[in-house]
Amino acid sequence: MKKRNIVFEIAYEGTRYSGWQKQGNTGRTVSGRIEEALRQLYGQAGDTAPDAFELAGAGRTDAGVHALGQVANVHLSCDDAPERIREKLNGILPTDIRIQRCYEAEDRFHARLKATGKIYEYVIVTGPVEDLWLRNRALQMKDEPDIEAMRAAANLLVGEHDYLGFSSLKASKKSTVRRVDSIEIWAEERPVGGKVIRLIFTGNGFLYHMVRILTGTLLEVGMHERTVTDAARALQTLDRADAGPAAPAMGLYLVKVIY
Amino acid sequence: MKKRNIVFEIAYEGTRYSGWQKQGNTGRTVSGRIEEALRQLYGQAGDTAPDAFELAGAGRTDAGVHALGQVANVHLSCDDAPERIREKLNGILPTDIRIQRCYEAEDRFHARLKATGKIYEYVIVTGPVEDLWLRNRALQMKDEPDIEAMRAAANLLVGEHDYLGFSSLKASKKSTVRRVDSIEIWAEERPVGGKVIRLIFTGNGFLYHMVRILTGTLLEVGMHERTVTDAARALQTLDRADAGPAAPAMGLYLVKVIY
Repeated sequence: MKKRNIVFEIAYEGTRYSGWQKQGNTGRTVSGRIEEALRQLYGQAGDTAPDAFELAGAGRTDAGVHALGQVANVHLSCDDAPERIREKLNGILPTDIRIQRCYEAEDRFHARLKATGKIYEYVIVTGPVEDLWLRNRALQMKDEPDIEAMRAAANLLVGEHDYLGFSSLKASKKSTVRRVDSIEIWAEERPVGGKVIRLIFTGNGFLYHMVRILTGTLLEVGMHERTVTDAARALQTLDRADAGPAAPAMGLYLVKVIY
Repeated sequence: MKKRNIVFEIAYEGTRYSGWQKQGNTGRTVSGRIEEALRQLYGQAGDTAPDAFELAGAGRTDAGVHALGQVANVHLSCDDAPERIREKLNGILPTDIRIQRCYEAEDRFHARLKATGKIYEYVIVTGPVEDLWLRNRALQMKDEPDIEAMRAAANLLVGEHDYLGFSSLKASKKSTVRRVDSIEIWAEERPVGGKVIRLIFTGNGFLYHMVRILTGTLLEVGMHERTVTDAARALQTLDRADAGPAAPAMGLYLVKVIY
Protein backbone atom coordinates (compact mmCIF):
# COMPACT_ATOMS: atom_id res chain seq x y z
CA MET A 1 0.00 0.00 0.00
CA LYS A 2 1.27 3.45 -0.88
CA LYS A 3 2.20 5.48 2.17
CA ARG A 4 0.15 8.61 2.83
CA ASN A 5 1.63 11.74 4.36
CA ILE A 6 -0.45 12.33 7.50
CA VAL A 7 -0.24 15.63 9.39
CA PHE A 8 -1.19 16.16 13.03
CA GLU A 9 -1.88 19.32 14.99
CA ILE A 10 -1.10 18.41 18.57
CA ALA A 11 -1.68 19.96 21.99
CA TYR A 12 0.14 18.74 25.07
CA GLU A 13 0.95 19.64 28.64
CA GLY A 14 4.71 19.14 28.79
CA THR A 15 4.94 18.72 32.57
CA ARG A 16 5.38 14.93 32.59
CA TYR A 17 7.60 14.74 29.51
CA SER A 18 11.29 15.21 28.83
CA GLY A 19 10.41 17.23 25.75
CA TRP A 20 9.02 16.69 22.28
CA GLN A 21 11.80 14.33 21.25
CA LYS A 22 14.87 12.63 22.62
CA GLN A 23 17.96 14.82 22.71
CA GLY A 24 20.36 12.12 23.80
CA ASN A 25 18.75 11.97 27.24
CA THR A 26 16.40 9.16 28.13
CA GLY A 27 12.88 9.55 29.40
CA ARG A 28 9.37 9.71 28.08
CA THR A 29 8.87 12.11 25.16
CA VAL A 30 5.71 13.42 23.52
CA SER A 31 6.71 12.26 20.03
CA GLY A 32 7.72 8.88 21.47
CA ARG A 33 4.25 8.41 22.98
CA ILE A 34 2.54 9.24 19.70
CA GLU A 35 4.91 6.99 17.71
CA GLU A 36 4.16 4.18 20.19
CA ALA A 37 0.42 4.71 19.66
CA LEU A 38 0.84 4.73 15.86
CA ARG A 39 2.82 1.49 16.02
CA GLN A 40 0.12 -0.07 18.21
CA LEU A 41 -2.63 0.97 15.78
CA TYR A 42 -0.94 0.58 12.41
CA GLY A 43 2.17 -1.54 13.00
CA GLN A 44 2.76 -4.45 10.65
CA ALA A 45 5.34 -7.21 10.41
CA GLY A 46 7.40 -5.11 8.00
CA ASP A 47 7.56 -2.09 10.30
CA THR A 48 10.14 -3.36 12.75
CA ALA A 49 12.61 -0.62 11.82
CA PRO A 50 12.93 1.74 14.81
CA ASP A 51 12.07 4.73 12.64
CA ALA A 52 9.09 3.16 10.87
CA PHE A 53 6.72 5.68 12.52
CA GLU A 54 9.13 8.56 12.99
CA LEU A 55 7.26 11.80 13.47
CA ALA A 56 8.79 14.97 12.07
CA GLY A 57 7.80 17.73 14.51
CA ALA A 58 7.91 21.44 13.65
CA GLY A 59 9.33 22.56 17.01
CA ARG A 60 11.54 20.57 19.36
CA THR A 61 10.02 21.80 22.62
CA ASP A 62 12.07 21.28 25.79
CA ALA A 63 11.13 19.26 28.86
CA GLY A 64 8.19 20.94 30.59
CA VAL A 65 7.27 23.16 27.62
CA HIS A 66 3.66 22.95 26.43
CA ALA A 67 2.02 23.13 23.01
CA LEU A 68 -1.35 24.33 21.79
CA GLY A 69 -0.53 23.75 18.12
CA GLN A 70 2.56 21.62 17.53
CA VAL A 71 2.56 20.21 13.98
CA ALA A 72 4.09 16.88 12.97
CA ASN A 73 3.82 14.55 9.98
CA VAL A 74 4.37 10.85 9.40
CA HIS A 75 4.29 8.61 6.34
CA LEU A 76 1.70 5.96 7.06
CA SER A 77 0.16 2.96 5.31
CA CYS A 78 -3.46 2.82 6.34
CA ASP A 79 -6.97 3.19 4.95
CA ASP A 80 -8.50 5.19 7.80
CA ALA A 81 -9.91 8.63 7.12
CA PRO A 82 -7.92 11.36 8.93
CA GLU A 83 -10.69 11.98 11.51
CA ARG A 84 -10.71 8.26 12.26
CA ILE A 85 -6.91 8.25 12.77
CA ARG A 86 -7.35 11.20 15.16
CA GLU A 87 -10.10 9.42 17.11
CA LYS A 88 -8.15 6.17 17.37
CA LEU A 89 -5.01 7.97 18.56
CA ASN A 90 -6.89 10.07 21.12
CA GLY A 91 -8.50 6.85 22.32
CA ILE A 92 -5.16 5.41 23.43
CA LEU A 93 -2.95 8.45 24.07
CA PRO A 94 -2.56 9.76 27.63
CA THR A 95 -4.99 12.61 28.40
CA ASP A 96 -2.19 15.20 28.54
CA ILE A 97 -1.60 14.73 24.78
CA ARG A 98 -4.44 15.44 22.32
CA ILE A 99 -4.43 15.24 18.54
CA GLN A 100 -6.43 18.40 17.75
CA ARG A 101 -6.63 17.95 13.99
CA CYS A 102 -5.47 15.39 11.46
CA TYR A 103 -5.29 15.75 7.66
CA GLU A 104 -3.49 14.37 4.63
CA ALA A 105 -0.84 16.44 2.82
CA GLU A 106 1.11 16.11 -0.40
CA ASP A 107 4.12 13.82 -0.25
CA ARG A 108 6.70 16.57 -0.02
CA PHE A 109 5.15 18.33 2.98
CA HIS A 110 7.49 18.24 6.00
CA ALA A 111 6.30 19.79 9.26
CA ARG A 112 9.68 21.23 10.23
CA LEU A 113 11.31 22.03 6.89
CA LYS A 114 8.23 23.68 5.40
CA ALA A 115 7.42 25.85 8.40
CA THR A 116 7.74 29.56 7.60
CA GLY A 117 6.98 30.88 11.03
CA LYS A 118 6.05 30.10 14.62
CA ILE A 119 4.16 31.74 17.45
CA TYR A 120 5.20 31.11 21.05
CA GLU A 121 3.60 32.45 24.21
CA TYR A 122 5.17 32.83 27.64
CA VAL A 123 2.80 33.12 30.62
CA ILE A 124 3.75 34.82 33.90
CA VAL A 125 1.51 35.09 36.97
CA THR A 126 2.35 37.71 39.59
CA GLY A 127 0.84 38.52 42.95
CA PRO A 128 0.78 37.37 46.56
CA VAL A 129 -1.08 34.10 45.84
CA GLU A 130 -0.14 31.52 43.21
CA ASP A 131 -2.81 30.63 40.65
CA LEU A 132 -3.50 26.97 41.39
CA TRP A 133 -5.14 26.43 37.97
CA LEU A 134 -1.87 27.42 36.27
CA ARG A 135 0.50 25.39 38.45
CA ASN A 136 3.15 23.89 36.13
CA ARG A 137 1.59 26.01 33.38
CA ALA A 138 3.07 29.44 34.10
CA LEU A 139 6.00 31.13 35.81
CA GLN A 140 4.59 32.34 39.13
CA MET A 141 6.32 35.17 40.99
CA LYS A 142 5.37 37.54 43.80
CA ASP A 143 6.72 40.81 42.41
CA GLU A 144 5.31 42.63 39.45
CA PRO A 145 7.66 43.58 36.63
CA ASP A 146 7.58 47.00 34.96
CA ILE A 147 5.62 46.14 31.85
CA GLU A 148 6.29 49.43 30.04
CA ALA A 149 10.03 48.86 30.43
CA MET A 150 9.62 45.30 29.11
CA ARG A 151 7.69 46.62 26.10
CA ALA A 152 10.40 49.20 25.38
CA ALA A 153 13.09 46.50 25.55
CA ALA A 154 11.00 44.14 23.42
CA ASN A 155 11.05 46.77 20.66
CA LEU A 156 14.86 46.53 20.59
CA LEU A 157 14.79 42.73 20.34
CA VAL A 158 12.62 42.38 17.22
CA GLY A 159 13.85 42.50 13.63
CA GLU A 160 16.26 40.37 11.62
CA HIS A 161 19.38 39.65 13.67
CA ASP A 162 21.92 37.01 14.52
CA TYR A 163 20.38 35.68 17.75
CA LEU A 164 23.30 33.35 18.65
CA GLY A 165 23.80 35.28 21.94
CA PHE A 166 20.16 34.61 22.83
CA SER A 167 20.52 30.85 22.39
CA SER A 168 22.10 27.90 24.19
CA LEU A 169 23.94 26.87 21.01
CA LYS A 170 27.69 26.63 21.50
CA ALA A 171 28.43 27.50 17.90
CA SER A 172 26.57 26.69 14.75
CA LYS A 173 27.56 25.91 11.18
CA LYS A 174 24.02 26.77 10.16
CA SER A 175 22.87 30.36 10.13
CA THR A 176 21.73 31.73 13.46
CA VAL A 177 20.04 34.71 11.83
CA ARG A 178 16.33 34.84 12.54
CA ARG A 179 13.57 37.38 12.02
CA VAL A 180 11.39 38.15 15.05
CA ASP A 181 8.34 39.96 13.70
CA SER A 182 6.84 40.98 17.02
CA ILE A 183 6.96 40.54 20.77
CA GLU A 184 3.61 41.61 22.17
CA ILE A 185 3.12 41.90 25.92
CA TRP A 186 -0.39 41.76 27.40
CA ALA A 187 -1.34 42.03 31.06
CA GLU A 188 -4.64 41.50 32.82
CA GLU A 189 -5.52 42.02 36.47
CA ARG A 190 -6.15 39.02 38.72
CA PRO A 191 -9.08 39.20 41.18
CA VAL A 192 -6.75 38.39 44.12
CA GLY A 193 -4.17 41.02 43.16
CA GLY A 194 -1.31 40.77 40.72
CA LYS A 195 -1.44 40.16 37.00
CA VAL A 196 -1.38 37.49 34.33
CA ILE A 197 1.24 38.64 31.81
CA ARG A 198 1.49 37.09 28.34
CA LEU A 199 4.49 37.56 26.04
CA ILE A 200 3.64 36.56 22.47
CA PHE A 201 6.59 35.95 20.14
CA THR A 202 6.05 35.75 16.37
CA GLY A 203 8.96 35.03 14.03
CA ASN A 204 10.27 32.95 11.17
CA GLY A 205 12.11 30.64 13.55
CA PHE A 206 13.66 30.49 17.01
CA LEU A 207 17.01 29.01 18.09
CA TYR A 208 17.49 26.51 20.91
CA HIS A 209 16.22 28.15 24.19
CA MET A 210 15.80 31.48 22.36
CA VAL A 211 12.25 32.31 23.53
CA ARG A 212 13.11 31.44 27.13
CA ILE A 213 16.30 33.57 27.06
CA LEU A 214 14.47 36.51 25.45
CA THR A 215 11.84 36.19 28.21
CA GLY A 216 14.48 35.96 30.94
CA THR A 217 16.20 39.07 29.58
CA LEU A 218 12.93 40.99 29.38
CA LEU A 219 12.11 39.96 32.95
CA GLU A 220 15.46 41.36 34.14
CA VAL A 221 14.51 44.65 32.50
CA GLY A 222 11.07 44.42 34.11
CA MET A 223 12.64 43.92 37.55
CA HIS A 224 15.03 46.86 36.89
CA GLU A 225 18.03 44.56 37.12
CA ARG A 226 19.01 45.53 33.56
CA THR A 227 18.49 48.74 31.60
CA VAL A 228 16.28 48.84 28.53
CA THR A 229 19.21 49.68 26.26
CA ASP A 230 21.27 46.84 27.71
CA ALA A 231 18.58 44.30 26.79
CA ALA A 232 19.77 44.02 23.19
CA ARG A 233 23.52 43.95 23.84
CA ALA A 234 23.85 40.26 22.94
CA LEU A 235 22.54 41.09 19.46
CA GLN A 236 25.79 43.00 18.89
CA THR A 237 28.26 40.88 20.87
CA LEU A 238 26.65 37.49 20.04
CA ASP A 239 27.79 36.54 23.55
CA ARG A 240 25.42 34.41 25.63
CA ALA A 241 26.82 36.05 28.77
CA ASP A 242 25.35 39.39 27.69
CA ALA A 243 21.77 38.07 27.70
CA GLY A 244 19.64 37.16 30.72
CA PRO A 245 18.92 33.71 32.12
CA ALA A 246 16.52 31.30 30.43
CA ALA A 247 13.07 31.64 31.98
CA PRO A 248 11.69 28.31 33.30
CA ALA A 249 10.18 25.90 30.77
CA MET A 250 6.80 25.64 32.53
CA GLY A 251 5.66 29.08 31.29
CA LEU A 252 6.24 28.42 27.60
CA TYR A 253 3.71 27.34 24.95
CA LEU A 254 4.22 26.58 21.25
CA VAL A 255 1.00 28.21 20.05
CA LYS A 256 1.04 27.88 16.29
CA VAL A 257 3.21 26.84 13.35
CA ILE A 258 2.80 28.88 10.19
CA TYR A 259 3.20 27.43 6.65
CA MET B 1 -4.85 34.93 74.54
CA LYS B 2 -8.27 35.86 73.23
CA LYS B 3 -9.23 33.88 70.17
CA ARG B 4 -9.69 35.85 66.95
CA ASN B 5 -12.25 34.91 64.32
CA ILE B 6 -10.21 34.39 61.15
CA VAL B 7 -11.92 34.10 57.76
CA PHE B 8 -10.42 32.46 54.67
CA GLU B 9 -11.39 32.67 51.02
CA ILE B 10 -10.13 29.45 49.51
CA ALA B 11 -9.64 28.08 46.01
CA TYR B 12 -9.03 24.39 45.38
CA GLU B 13 -9.00 21.78 42.68
CA GLY B 14 -11.15 19.02 44.16
CA THR B 15 -9.79 16.17 42.02
CA ARG B 16 -7.56 14.61 44.69
CA TYR B 17 -9.95 15.14 47.60
CA SER B 18 -12.97 13.33 48.95
CA GLY B 19 -14.74 16.66 49.34
CA TRP B 20 -14.59 19.70 51.56
CA GLN B 21 -15.24 17.77 54.75
CA LYS B 22 -15.73 14.25 55.99
CA GLN B 23 -19.24 12.88 55.45
CA GLY B 24 -18.73 9.65 57.35
CA ASN B 25 -16.38 8.38 54.65
CA THR B 26 -12.66 8.38 55.15
CA GLY B 27 -10.11 9.99 52.88
CA ARG B 28 -8.30 13.23 52.49
CA THR B 29 -10.51 16.33 52.67
CA VAL B 30 -9.78 19.96 51.83
CA SER B 31 -10.85 21.24 55.25
CA GLY B 32 -8.81 18.47 56.87
CA ARG B 33 -5.67 19.59 55.06
CA ILE B 34 -6.16 23.20 56.12
CA GLU B 35 -6.91 22.19 59.73
CA GLU B 36 -3.73 20.09 59.72
CA ALA B 37 -1.75 23.09 58.46
CA LEU B 38 -3.30 25.36 61.12
CA ARG B 39 -2.43 22.84 63.84
CA GLN B 40 1.13 22.63 62.54
CA LEU B 41 1.50 26.43 62.54
CA TYR B 42 -0.49 27.43 65.61
CA GLY B 43 -0.98 24.26 67.66
CA GLN B 44 -0.24 24.47 71.37
CA ALA B 45 -0.21 21.99 74.21
CA GLY B 46 -3.78 22.90 75.09
CA ASP B 47 -5.13 22.30 71.60
CA THR B 48 -5.22 18.53 71.65
CA ALA B 49 -9.00 18.45 71.25
CA PRO B 50 -9.79 17.04 67.80
CA ASP B 51 -11.91 20.08 66.96
CA ALA B 52 -9.43 22.70 68.21
CA PHE B 53 -8.97 24.03 64.65
CA GLU B 54 -12.34 23.10 63.22
CA LEU B 55 -13.07 25.11 60.10
CA ALA B 56 -16.67 26.12 59.41
CA GLY B 57 -17.02 26.08 55.62
CA ALA B 58 -19.82 27.83 53.75
CA GLY B 59 -20.43 25.03 51.24
CA ARG B 60 -19.81 21.30 51.73
CA THR B 61 -18.52 20.56 48.23
CA ASP B 62 -18.52 16.89 47.17
CA ALA B 63 -15.55 14.78 46.15
CA GLY B 64 -14.09 16.13 42.90
CA VAL B 65 -15.92 19.47 43.09
CA HIS B 66 -13.74 22.59 42.83
CA ALA B 67 -13.87 26.02 44.43
CA LEU B 68 -12.81 29.47 43.33
CA GLY B 69 -14.20 31.18 46.41
CA GLN B 70 -15.05 28.83 49.26
CA VAL B 71 -15.30 30.72 52.56
CA ALA B 72 -14.46 29.27 55.98
CA ASN B 73 -13.72 30.65 59.43
CA VAL B 74 -11.85 29.43 62.48
CA HIS B 75 -11.32 30.78 65.99
CA LEU B 76 -7.60 31.11 66.42
CA SER B 77 -5.16 32.29 69.08
CA CYS B 78 -2.26 33.95 67.30
CA ASP B 79 -0.62 37.32 66.80
CA ASP B 80 0.03 37.11 63.06
CA ALA B 81 -1.52 39.65 60.73
CA PRO B 82 -4.05 38.04 58.37
CA GLU B 83 -1.75 38.36 55.34
CA ARG B 84 0.97 36.60 57.31
CA ILE B 85 -1.42 33.77 58.24
CA ARG B 86 -2.28 33.44 54.55
CA GLU B 87 1.39 33.34 53.52
CA LYS B 88 2.30 30.79 56.17
CA LEU B 89 -0.61 28.52 55.23
CA ASN B 90 0.12 28.76 51.49
CA GLY B 91 3.74 27.92 52.30
CA ILE B 92 2.80 24.49 53.65
CA LEU B 93 -0.48 23.64 51.93
CA PRO B 94 -0.44 21.43 48.80
CA THR B 95 -0.43 23.48 45.59
CA ASP B 96 -3.98 22.42 44.68
CA ILE B 97 -5.31 24.39 47.68
CA ARG B 98 -4.68 28.15 47.92
CA ILE B 99 -5.80 30.62 50.54
CA GLN B 100 -6.81 33.52 48.31
CA ARG B 101 -7.62 36.02 51.04
CA CYS B 102 -7.53 36.10 54.83
CA TYR B 103 -9.15 38.62 57.16
CA GLU B 104 -10.45 39.01 60.70
CA ALA B 105 -14.19 39.19 61.38
CA GLU B 106 -16.35 39.95 64.38
CA ASP B 107 -16.82 37.08 66.81
CA ARG B 108 -20.30 36.15 65.67
CA PHE B 109 -19.43 35.74 61.99
CA HIS B 110 -19.95 32.13 60.83
CA ALA B 111 -19.08 31.27 57.22
CA ARG B 112 -22.01 28.88 56.74
CA LEU B 113 -24.74 30.32 58.96
CA LYS B 114 -24.23 33.93 57.83
CA ALA B 115 -24.14 33.17 54.10
CA THR B 116 -27.08 34.76 52.27
CA GLY B 117 -26.30 33.39 48.83
CA LYS B 118 -23.98 31.34 46.68
CA ILE B 119 -22.85 31.26 43.06
CA TYR B 120 -21.93 27.94 41.45
CA GLU B 121 -20.68 27.33 37.91
CA TYR B 122 -20.88 24.12 35.91
CA VAL B 123 -18.48 23.79 32.94
CA ILE B 124 -19.17 21.54 29.94
CA VAL B 125 -16.82 21.04 26.98
CA THR B 126 -18.24 19.61 23.76
CA GLY B 127 -16.66 18.61 20.48
CA PRO B 128 -14.65 15.86 18.83
CA VAL B 129 -11.48 16.46 20.89
CA GLU B 130 -11.28 16.74 24.68
CA ASP B 131 -9.74 19.91 26.10
CA LEU B 132 -6.62 18.64 27.85
CA TRP B 133 -6.28 21.83 29.93
CA LEU B 134 -9.71 21.15 31.48
CA ARG B 135 -9.25 17.44 32.16
CA ASN B 136 -10.81 16.73 35.60
CA ARG B 137 -12.06 20.32 35.49
CA ALA B 138 -15.10 20.03 33.18
CA LEU B 139 -17.62 17.52 31.89
CA GLN B 140 -16.38 16.64 28.40
CA MET B 141 -18.81 15.20 25.85
CA LYS B 142 -18.78 14.74 22.07
CA ASP B 143 -22.31 15.89 21.25
CA GLU B 144 -23.53 19.43 21.54
CA PRO B 145 -26.68 20.09 23.56
CA ASP B 146 -29.43 22.43 22.33
CA ILE B 147 -28.57 25.51 24.33
CA GLU B 148 -31.79 27.41 23.56
CA ALA B 149 -33.81 24.47 24.91
CA MET B 150 -31.64 24.43 28.03
CA ARG B 151 -32.18 28.17 28.52
CA ALA B 152 -35.95 27.73 28.17
CA ALA B 153 -35.92 24.91 30.75
CA ALA B 154 -33.66 26.93 33.06
CA ASN B 155 -36.35 29.64 33.13
CA LEU B 156 -38.77 27.10 34.62
CA LEU B 157 -36.31 26.02 37.30
CA VAL B 158 -35.64 29.42 38.89
CA GLY B 159 -37.74 31.04 41.60
CA GLU B 160 -38.61 30.10 45.17
CA HIS B 161 -39.57 26.43 45.31
CA ASP B 162 -39.28 23.27 47.35
CA TYR B 163 -36.29 21.66 45.58
CA LEU B 164 -36.42 18.35 47.49
CA GLY B 165 -36.95 16.46 44.20
CA PHE B 166 -33.74 18.05 42.87
CA SER B 167 -31.65 16.83 45.79
CA SER B 168 -30.18 13.59 47.10
CA LEU B 169 -31.77 14.15 50.50
CA LYS B 170 -34.00 11.28 51.60
CA ALA B 171 -36.24 13.47 53.64
CA SER B 172 -35.50 16.54 55.67
CA LYS B 173 -36.82 18.00 58.88
CA LYS B 174 -35.35 21.33 57.81
CA SER B 175 -36.97 23.33 55.05
CA THR B 176 -36.01 22.32 51.53
CA VAL B 177 -37.38 25.54 50.07
CA ARG B 178 -34.70 27.57 48.28
CA ARG B 179 -34.69 30.58 46.01
CA VAL B 180 -32.74 30.26 42.77
CA ASP B 181 -32.33 33.80 41.43
CA SER B 182 -30.89 32.91 38.05
CA ILE B 183 -29.44 30.16 35.90
CA GLU B 184 -27.42 31.80 33.13
CA ILE B 185 -26.05 29.71 30.29
CA TRP B 186 -23.11 30.98 28.24
CA ALA B 187 -21.43 29.25 25.32
CA GLU B 188 -18.27 30.06 23.39
CA GLU B 189 -16.82 28.35 20.32
CA ARG B 190 -13.66 26.25 20.64
CA PRO B 191 -11.00 26.60 17.92
CA VAL B 192 -11.06 22.83 17.27
CA GLY B 193 -14.86 22.64 17.01
CA GLY B 194 -17.43 22.30 19.75
CA LYS B 195 -18.16 24.69 22.59
CA VAL B 196 -17.33 25.55 26.16
CA ILE B 197 -20.68 25.90 27.94
CA ARG B 198 -20.97 27.52 31.35
CA LEU B 199 -24.07 27.26 33.57
CA ILE B 200 -24.03 29.87 36.32
CA PHE B 201 -26.38 29.28 39.27
CA THR B 202 -27.13 32.09 41.73
CA GLY B 203 -29.39 31.48 44.72
CA ASN B 204 -29.85 31.85 48.45
CA GLY B 205 -28.76 28.25 49.02
CA PHE B 206 -28.56 24.85 47.35
CA LEU B 207 -29.50 21.43 48.72
CA TYR B 208 -27.24 18.36 48.68
CA HIS B 209 -26.38 17.57 44.99
CA MET B 210 -28.90 20.20 43.82
CA VAL B 211 -26.68 22.04 41.31
CA ARG B 212 -25.49 18.75 39.80
CA ILE B 213 -29.07 17.42 39.46
CA LEU B 214 -30.31 20.71 37.97
CA THR B 215 -27.42 20.48 35.47
CA GLY B 216 -28.14 16.82 34.68
CA THR B 217 -31.80 17.66 34.08
CA LEU B 218 -30.92 20.60 31.84
CA LEU B 219 -28.51 18.40 29.89
CA GLU B 220 -31.29 15.87 29.27
CA VAL B 221 -33.36 18.70 27.84
CA GLY B 222 -30.37 19.82 25.78
CA MET B 223 -29.96 16.31 24.35
CA HIS B 224 -33.73 16.17 23.62
CA GLU B 225 -34.16 13.25 26.00
CA ARG B 226 -36.63 15.33 28.04
CA THR B 227 -39.05 18.07 27.01
CA VAL B 228 -38.63 21.60 28.25
CA THR B 229 -41.92 21.49 30.16
CA ASP B 230 -40.95 18.19 31.79
CA ALA B 231 -37.76 19.72 33.22
CA ALA B 232 -39.57 21.25 36.19
CA ARG B 233 -41.84 18.31 37.04
CA ALA B 234 -39.92 17.45 40.22
CA LEU B 235 -40.74 20.94 41.55
CA GLN B 236 -44.40 19.80 41.72
CA THR B 237 -44.00 16.13 42.63
CA LEU B 238 -40.96 16.60 44.93
CA ASP B 239 -39.92 13.17 43.61
CA ARG B 240 -36.23 12.63 42.88
CA ALA B 241 -37.23 10.15 40.16
CA ASP B 242 -38.80 12.97 38.15
CA ALA B 243 -35.51 14.89 37.84
CA GLY B 244 -32.48 13.97 35.74
CA PRO B 245 -29.25 12.33 36.89
CA ALA B 246 -26.60 14.25 38.84
CA ALA B 247 -23.98 15.61 36.43
CA PRO B 248 -20.42 14.50 37.32
CA ALA B 249 -18.65 16.36 40.12
CA MET B 250 -15.62 17.34 38.02
CA GLY B 251 -17.53 20.09 36.15
CA LEU B 252 -18.71 21.95 39.24
CA TYR B 253 -17.17 25.04 40.90
CA LEU B 254 -18.23 26.93 44.02
CA VAL B 255 -17.52 30.41 42.65
CA LYS B 256 -18.58 32.79 45.40
CA VAL B 257 -20.31 32.96 48.77
CA ILE B 258 -22.44 36.04 49.36
CA TYR B 259 -22.91 37.66 52.80
